Amino acid sequence: MTDFNQYASEWADRARHASRELVLASGNQKNAWLRRSAQLVRTRTAELIAANAKDIEAAPGFGLTSAMVDRLRLTDERLEGIATALEAIALLPDPIGEIFESNVRPNGLLVTRVRVPLGVVFFIFESRPNVTADAAAICVKSGNAVILRGGKEALHSNLALHRLLVEALKENGLPEHAVQLVDTTDRDAVGAFLKQSGKIDVTIPRGGKSLIERVAAEASMPVIKHFDGICHVYVDKAADLAMARSIIVNSKCQRPGVCNAAETLLVHSAIAAEFLPGAATALRDAGVELRGCPRTQEIVTDCAAATEEDFRTEYLELILSVKIVDSVEEAIAHVNEYGSHHTESIVSQDISATTRFAASCDSAAVHINASTRFNDGGEYGLGAEIGISTDKFHARGPCGLRELTSYKYVVHGSGQIK
Amino acid sequence: MTDFNQYASEWADRARHASRELVLASGNQKNAWLRRSAQLVRTRTAELIAANAKDIEAAPGFGLTSAMVDRLRLTDERLEGIATALEAIALLPDPIGEIFESNVRPNGLLVTRVRVPLGVVFFIFESRPNVTADAAAICVKSGNAVILRGGKEALHSNLALHRLLVEALKENGLPEHAVQLVDTTDRDAVGAFLKQSGKIDVTIPRGGKSLIERVAAEASMPVIKHFDGICHVYVDKAADLAMARSIIVNSKCQRPGVCNAAETLLVHSAIAAEFLPGAATALRDAGVELRGCPRTQEIVTDCAAATEEDFRTEYLELILSVKIVDSVEEAIAHVNEYGSHHTESIVSQDISATTRFAASCDSAAVHINASTRFNDGGEYGLGAEIGISTDKFHARGPCGLRELTSYKYVVHGSGQIK
Repeated sequence: MTDFNQYASEWADRARHASRELVLASGNQKNAWLRRSAQLVRTRTAELIAANAKDIEAAPGFGLTSAMVDRLRLTDERLEGIATALEAIALLPDPIGEIFESNVRPNGLLVTRVRVPLGVVFFIFESRPNVTADAAAICVKSGNAVILRGGKEALHSNLALHRLLVEALKENGLPEHAVQLVDTTDRDAVGAFLKQSGKIDVTIPRGGKSLIERVAAEASMPVIKHFDGICHVYVDKAADLAMARSIIVNSKCQRPGVCNAAETLLVHSAIAAEFLPGAATALRDAGVELRGCPRTQEIVTDCAAATEEDFRTEYLELILSVKIVDSVEEAIAHVNEYGSHHTESIVSQDISATTRFAASCDSAAVHINASTRFNDGGEYGLGAEIGISTDKFHARGPCGLRELTSYKYVVHGSGQIK
Repeated sequence: MTDFNQYASEWADRARHASRELVLASGNQKNAWLRRSAQLVRTRTAELIAANAKDIEAAPGFGLTSAMVDRLRLTDERLEGIATALEAIALLPDPIGEIFESNVRPNGLLVTRVRVPLGVVFFIFESRPNVTADAAAICVKSGNAVILRGGKEALHSNLALHRLLVEALKENGLPEHAVQLVDTTDRDAVGAFLKQSGKIDVTIPRGGKSLIERVAAEASMPVIKHFDGICHVYVDKAADLAMARSIIVNSKCQRPGVCNAAETLLVHSAIAAEFLPGAATALRDAGVELRGCPRTQEIVTDCAAATEEDFRTEYLELILSVKIVDSVEEAIAHVNEYGSHHTESIVSQDISATTRFAASCDSAAVHINASTRFNDGGEYGLGAEIGISTDKFHARGPCGLRELTSYKYVVHGSGQIK
């Protein structure tokens, strides 16, 4: 058996050294790297597609479904997408070195808070190779060295992409170990990396819930994560009902397989009889199966019964649980008890209700009169996103460049003593 | 054996419920609680001093030294200090509800980041009872419920203070479980609380290194901590040498037993022969024992030899290790290798050197031409401090009210769908 602890320690050391150099890299250097990487992705398509072909060939052996194989496939168009994304990240402002707070003390000390990189990021992800380039770009642009650990299904594609990224790092005077790709697909290697606290500053897992649970349980360093997205839409008694219908249909149906899609509809009892029949028709027309509480079943008579378990389920498909509540407080209590602290929407024209809902839902995002589907780094204006956090520590919600930074105090004096 | 898991789970549930109410508390309510608590501390001195007397009486049985007994003792003057500190926290701005960032998207969505409490804080501390009131005040003012776990030596004093704080909570319509004091001093109880992730949002240990190491190893939730403060003063070749002497003497001697006192002096070789003899005299006049590298010993001929271990030691007393380096880069490398990421000072008139030192020292605070002793919430203008973090995740450096908060996205729409 390979000694993965030794292996992980060496990789982490190289990353740590690279991160010390990256701290001093200018925005120009990092952006030149991003643009050169984009150029290489565009010009070395043959190489990338050949590597990807090996993964596609091996895919049935890994038990990948045809949908999964399709997500794995690199085409000219998808490579162009990767290149464009790299260039978009080059256009974002550099977060490092920003003085985002300062304060002159009575003794003349100028106390500043300066944004600095976190250091070393361990990024674990599944299949899609575009994530390789994207994650590397976000980490390095925010001054962090990254250790990438992709799925075994995409190993050849990832290695080929990684080669180009490193080539561009060297050409631009950046440390080649700023981006490392773990070259073993042994699961035990992940465990060894998760023990490297002190060398790795944060781990970001992106994939299925079981992967994320394993990482959260084993990691000795902080983890940026969300397990699932049990998102709610609450239709208040003071809702514009046409708006409410359009928001629940969009939140549920626009892309049901993602974490910010709605899984539960909460409806105030005062408008339930008026709202639910039309909403049910609209949802069913969009292919949604409804599962309701007993009061919902009284109104939508052919609706299946929702179990306790339904309200704790992230369906990720066209199923929606429905519950009637008697107050905004009851809606909040349901969200905090059954939800996953991800995204909740309230539809209401009553500012007391929206204010209360926004203050009391213990979730990363509360949307007032807007679809849950907007919880996303791009939609929020972060520019790029490496993941979404449902934790409250460090970063919450979509995580972009700035969420991969820390700060230090730099204090300017002229000989002050205490 | 008591089932501490059940016990801790119930305490954490009560705290979580209290925190849900605290989110809605106004600044006025919280400040009224602080002022009323101060008043109770001032008027119920007899009760507090009687409780404290029980602790003082029991102290020898716990093996407390006379210095420790002195720190434990409550006097009228110290109670006045506690009351004054509570009132000072009432005067600080309320961090909760602040919109600290906003952004209107092209589709009209107003995306805001709103400061919210972390939720539930588990605060573990040793002897001094004034910390009880201080920690409760900082946590509740920042909207968090707190579970306090003090040392067994101060149990009666802490219980008496806690009674007053709860009395004032009830009088002001705040949840009584906003401040809970663990009423068992069994060490196993701490372990049970440290397993309550999901209910407790952050643990803050304050005390000796072994306590903090135990907490960091066992905690299932994030921990705000620093293990030790191996702080450096680097005297550059471009230093004002009189300023350098005053800064190293102050950094080492002003209060040697605290974490932001200097433990190592780094001196550039170009000015070592000029600087060290006078600095050594000044330090020795202040009672400091010097331990130097071989090159230091050539200049300060009667200086003891510093071992490798010396440079990794937080003395917390009047001992200073000294090393001569040949460049600012070598000073930085020493700091990053031997330090504890706490506080470093550079003394130099050369802006290239100070900029490089500030950028590359991987520490919570870098002071330019100022004593290390200024790394403190009060000195930085945070107003109050619950601890210092040497981690890079969430909060770094002194932690005040704002460092006990998170944020949520609140997005204001008018029916937007994706």
